[in-house]
Amino acid sequence: MTEVSVASLAELVGGRLVGDGGRRIVGLCDLRQAAPDRIGFVRHPRYQQIAADTVAGALLATDEFETAASLIVVDDVDVAYAKVAMHFHPLPLAREHHVHPSAFVHPEAVLERPVEVGPNASVGRCKIGPGTAIKAGASVGDGAQLGSDCLIHANATVGHDCVLGDRVILQPNAVVGSDGFGYAREGATWHKVPQLGHVVCGDDVEVGSNSAVDRGTLGVTTIGARTKLDNLVHIAHNCTIGKDVVMAAGAMVAGSTSMGDRCVLAGQVGVSGHLKIASDCRFAGDTVVLRDVPEPGDYMGHPMMTKRQYLRLMRDQRRSVSD
Amino acid sequence: MTEVSVASLAELVGGRLVGDGGRRIVGLCDLRQAAPDRIGFVRHPRYQQIAADTVAGALLATDEFETAASLIVVDDVDVAYAKVAMHFHPLPLAREHHVHPSAFVHPEAVLERPVEVGPNASVGRCKIGPGTAIKAGASVGDGAQLGSDCLIHANATVGHDCVLGDRVILQPNAVVGSDGFGYAREGATWHKVPQLGHVVCGDDVEVGSNSAVDRGTLGVTTIGARTKLDNLVHIAHNCTIGKDVVMAAGAMVAGSTSMGDRCVLAGQVGVSGHLKIASDCRFAGDTVVLRDVPEPGDYMGHPMMTKRQYLRLMRDQRRSVSD
Amino acid sequence: MTEVSVASLAELVGGRLVGDGGRRIVGLCDLRQAAPDRIGFVRHPRYQQIAADTVAGALLATDEFETAASLIVVDDVDVAYAKVAMHFHPLPLAREHHVHPSAFVHPEAVLERPVEVGPNASVGRCKIGPGTAIKAGASVGDGAQLGSDCLIHANATVGHDCVLGDRVILQPNAVVGSDGFGYAREGATWHKVPQLGHVVCGDDVEVGSNSAVDRGTLGVTTIGARTKLDNLVHIAHNCTIGKDVVMAAGAMVAGSTSMGDRCVLAGQVGVSGHLKIASDCRFAGDTVVLRDVPEPGDYMGHPMMTKRQYLRLMRDQRRSVSD
Repeated sequence: MTEVSVASLAELVGGRLVGDGGRRIVGLCDLRQAAPDRIGFVRHPRYQQIAADTVAGALLATDEFETAASLIVVDDVDVAYAKVAMHFHPLPLAREHHVHPSAFVHPEAVLERPVEVGPNASVGRCKIGPGTAIKAGASVGDGAQLGSDCLIHANATVGHDCVLGDRVILQPNAVVGSDGFGYAREGATWHKVPQLGHVVCGDDVEVGSNSAVDRGTLGVTTIGARTKLDNLVHIAHNCTIGKDVVMAAGAMVAGSTSMGDRCVLAGQVGVSGHLKIASDCRFAGDTVVLRDVPEPGDYMGHPMMTKRQYLRLMRDQRRSVSD
Repeated sequence: MTEVSVASLAELVGGRLVGDGGRRIVGLCDLRQAAPDRIGFVRHPRYQQIAADTVAGALLATDEFETAASLIVVDDVDVAYAKVAMHFHPLPLAREHHVHPSAFVHPEAVLERPVEVGPNASVGRCKIGPGTAIKAGASVGDGAQLGSDCLIHANATVGHDCVLGDRVILQPNAVVGSDGFGYAREGATWHKVPQLGHVVCGDDVEVGSNSAVDRGTLGVTTIGARTKLDNLVHIAHNCTIGKDVVMAAGAMVAGSTSMGDRCVLAGQVGVSGHLKIASDCRFAGDTVVLRDVPEPGDYMGHPMMTKRQYLRLMRDQRRSVSD
Repeated sequence: MTEVSVASLAELVGGRLVGDGGRRIVGLCDLRQAAPDRIGFVRHPRYQQIAADTVAGALLATDEFETAASLIVVDDVDVAYAKVAMHFHPLPLAREHHVHPSAFVHPEAVLERPVEVGPNASVGRCKIGPGTAIKAGASVGDGAQLGSDCLIHANATVGHDCVLGDRVILQPNAVVGSDGFGYAREGATWHKVPQLGHVVCGDDVEVGSNSAVDRGTLGVTTIGARTKLDNLVHIAHNCTIGKDVVMAAGAMVAGSTSMGDRCVLAGQVGVSGHLKIASDCRFAGDTVVLRDVPEPGDYMGHPMMTKRQYLRLMRDQRRSVSD
């Protein structure tokens, strides 16, 4: 943990300081297990009473109130918490250059120092930016390009020629760059179509455990900047996923679909191939999307309908099944 | 295989011995491919005719009947079979202490002998109990604690600080301890919330291939003792899953949901976050659970309803679609 | 890339040559970025105008038309493209025998030269046919048998005793041979039933990233020749899947179900256990199959119905929810 003044934390989160900014803080705390060198969080006014009596050195809150702690007043405690927590618990990136002796690194790989390559990891003839850590057992293929401060967790796989921006995180056993599911049918038989494209993940993308992003058949599968994929998510070949998209666990998008920015897919949503999904669409859990969605909004159902239509259907169903 | 007397097997399964308990048995057999040093199984009375003529040395059965074989009479042949089969085909745990030369074990790791660490596995600064085997390519993070007789299969990943009880099994490529899917939204952008908690799996938990159990954001994600997760199951951060729960493939539970004991989730069930599910709930395949379930019982549908309601809905649907 | 004459390519794809067969071709091209030593593709007559002016040395097309390029006329451009693309971009199989020094190969393993074993891969006491490549971090268990020209991608796992035919491909982090989800219930508790069977994959099977095929409890889980499984697919123990079956991402089949040849499962289809599915059944995305399907045809819905019934249900639903 890195000691820091309350004033510096206020600056980090863009908050307004109330009280002593010089106090030294070494970490986070719960309001009930506070200490003078810790910072706590008041997410809701109903906790102000507890917070008034805290011995925490500082508090994040949305309002000013009576307390012995220094206050950092912010619009959104969750966002401020994320930034403060990341300060005290930074990601396990490469701080010094270290290639574990059991790891394999191709002699022509270009590693911009510092890079960490963990035990039994395998790094092909690729380029890796500074700060990036490749954890135990992970594999990076030939021709891949990883930006700075990426975190490739244990047993994750980055396929050949794939491109990751800066600060991309792959959770354990995630795969970026598997072959697209492409076959040409001749009679009863399916011939494999070589998957010659690759994947481009923008800056700050995160891919969850056991998720898979397939490479393009010829072109590129694109995951836009800051998009977050939960565990067990599937993105098929040649999809173009926008920026700031969030997909919860089990969401799956079939081939060549393009999706705008800021879409939210809840768990187990399925999206067919070759569709166009507008920006700012939100799909409830388990929605099945079989057609283009040209307008932003809330969608749900199997097959997908608008939220309004779905609620009407549910009302009818409830009537039908009630005793 | 370990030779054993029929009397010992009867004791192992808590069955009643009929006939010669001194016969030596070396393994299992099918009734049609029997041998005098093998034990067979009569799961249903209709097979007693075949079993009467068997040359198997012993038979497990629910009833006494005429046969040259020694009989072990039990209430449940399946349970007795599981125990006998496990006797002759024990799990590939560590019998003698062996760290493969290609494996990495942190010099400060505490391995209670015997532990097996397979080829190209990576074991951080953690504690591992006796009998536990870490198979090829598997990874165990710093601060993890594994009990005795655990089986971490090939390429599975145990994240830092996670705790596994005794006899926990992770199937190949399973992940315990990936980061929870936690972000704080600021405008269009999602800030990663550091996931500072961990996972606790009770004794005798099993996690299937390519399944993922996320660590808590601050606290713990808990999997109760004897709970079994099939392949491609997702348990999000801060869930509390009870004991003796069974989840079939593709079942997914979103964050902070708590679930009682003995629940059964069939394949592809989805459970929303922040819900409370009572003990002894059974969810049919593909059920979508969007609300608390305070009562035990059978549930199905999208969204979830009681079995009774669902069957009524299905009857209406069938009428609607019939020719 | 391997230089080849247009005449040879025509022979490779079984096409009719029109024009100069002696031109040398070194690779594929897009019609707009063509070159005299490249071959392009005219998938639809509407592109003939562009193709007429191309400088590509050769073109694949379904019809003869005016162009300076040599033409290879075929029935199906997609199939011909797959074959030509595979010629110029062959799979990364073993061309020369090479075991990476960081890999583990059991001293009693039988590797028919040439075999490639990549960095930090682990190969047990198994048999591997010529041409097969085991990529970085992959694991092959004891007793496994792999045919010729198989491709086991990074961090994939082949369990002990599993059998792969020739030209089988496992995408990164795929698992073949995890334990089946088999337990015997005694009161509230589930006893693990040892999973003593294995998996047999026929020739030309492909298994996608993070997919899992469980071994049989006693017998075999079978994946028929040329069957293709996309990412995140689950095949439970003792299933018998036919030949030329295609399963899209997230399809899951529960235990002991048998399925005929040429079935097509779209994304996230769920099939219950112990069912019999006829050959030539096609299931739309997210279909839930709870009963036997004795007749070929198109099926959809939760639970599954015929396409005809489903469309009627949807018509009724649309009427019910329309404004």
